[in-house]
Amino acid sequence: MKPRIISQHKKNSYQFWLYGLHPVASALANNKRLKHRLVVSENALRKLSEPIKESGIRYEIVDVKAINHLLEPGIVHQGVALEVSTLHQPSTDELLNNGDKIGALILLDGITDANNVGAIIRTAEAFYAQGIITTVRNSPSESGVLAKASSGALERLPFIKVPNLVGVMQKLKKNGYWIAGLDVNGDCSLNQAITGVNESQIVFVLGSEGKGLRQATKECCDFLVRISTNPTIGSINVSNAAAICLYAGQTLSPKP
Amino acid sequence: MKPRIISQHKKNSYQFWLYGLHPVASALANNKRLKHRLVVSENALRKLSEPIKESGIRYEIVDVKAINHLLEPGIVHQGVALEVSTLHQPSTDELLNNGDKIGALILLDGITDANNVGAIIRTAEAFYAQGIITTVRNSPSESGVLAKASSGALERLPFIKVPNLVGVMQKLKKNGYWIAGLDVNGDCSLNQAITGVNESQIVFVLGSEGKGLRQATKECCDFLVRISTNPTIGSINVSNAAAICLYAGQTLSPKP
Repeated sequence: MKPRIISQHKKNSYQFWLYGLHPVASALANNKRLKHRLVVSENALRKLSEPIKESGIRYEIVDVKAINHLLEPGIVHQGVALEVSTLHQPSTDELLNNGDKIGALILLDGITDANNVGAIIRTAEAFYAQGIITTVRNSPSESGVLAKASSGALERLPFIKVPNLVGVMQKLKKNGYWIAGLDVNGDCSLNQAITGVNESQIVFVLGSEGKGLRQATKECCDFLVRISTNPTIGSINVSNAAAICLYAGQTLSPKP
Repeated sequence: MKPRIISQHKKNSYQFWLYGLHPVASALANNKRLKHRLVVSENALRKLSEPIKESGIRYEIVDVKAINHLLEPGIVHQGVALEVSTLHQPSTDELLNNGDKIGALILLDGITDANNVGAIIRTAEAFYAQGIITTVRNSPSESGVLAKASSGALERLPFIKVPNLVGVMQKLKKNGYWIAGLDVNGDCSLNQAITGVNESQIVFVLGSEGKGLRQATKECCDFLVRISTNPTIGSINVSNAAAICLYAGQTLSPKP
């Protein structure tokens, strides 16, 4: 489905369908999410009555088949779809100036798969991460797939796209962050990279499963970290790698 | 597609299609995998020429559309499909008597989603796990989806189904294993549960994201472990939880 441009002034904004109980409930609870149309089956309405009531949104009760026709074939929508506009995300500076930082920050370098990125958003939120920063190119846009894979966390965690990742990394370093890039040829362990560093000053950079980090990204890291796995087989899934980093960041950091 | 029964003597065995470059290459390299028919596009043949040659298997060069017709709609097969029989898996006793144990053992209690289980198999292999044990009921059977999600690791890691998980847990305890069950209300951290335990004596038990572990399973654990995440949002994905456990098991165990 081709994204529909809303206005010339917000040319990066477009409308798309969210679907599934978790993503729709999360979007309904998100005041910053512009909502256009809610279609829901009788059955799903019972499960979502509370968030729908609280959001005050108008809804259309429809047959499940009508929802099938609105979405791409094969999508598991659980009887509900909500047409929305993309979110206005904070700038990197706004993110850095947030005084309530708890967890680490995640940078993604060339991870294109919306299911992987969504899974990372979900896990990042669970570990109190500050947000996700990724590149304008070679990263998934907001979509129903991304929101579903994030289990609704896309509504709450900053998901920022920047034209130049290295520029952001340099700014982060100036702001006291330590940057650990994951690399199969890395020469230090997660423990070595982050022990003693305050969790809110840790940045993990993850690349795609096939290509890894770009050379310029690698060169800007303070540490290149390798998660020790069986070298005779392929790498672990990138969302699993992110989960391990976030867990280790939480566990190894000095607690105030 | 309904599984086809091969013989009365092996009534749990059936044929199914594997697809995708990694799963098919892994199956071709697996002498224990009974292979029936290989269909491959010109393009995929170039990428798989080595494993096909080494396996000595006959193949049919076909159009990508012909492969589409053999599989369920919407499947991403990357131009190759291999019809195979299910693997003969070891028994729990055979697994326990294996002298080369390095990593932890994973038990799954009611995880039905083949994508999640496949992802766990993949990560478990990467962390040298001994194998996966799950229940005959409420767990996915071998399938193209499971093999693809495991990125081929299904060919190499024991994936054992048992009628009674608690019976196996009791046997494991008698054999010196320590059993850590993941539970949102668990009262100890991963560190507390496994620090000082040799990695090859650790068992992690994971339940489904919604229901968690069954009561009888919980009661048989030595520790109930909670991974500390934001309590106001849902749990993390089960394959991410498995990855964290396996990483922690590897990192915290005493090394010989």
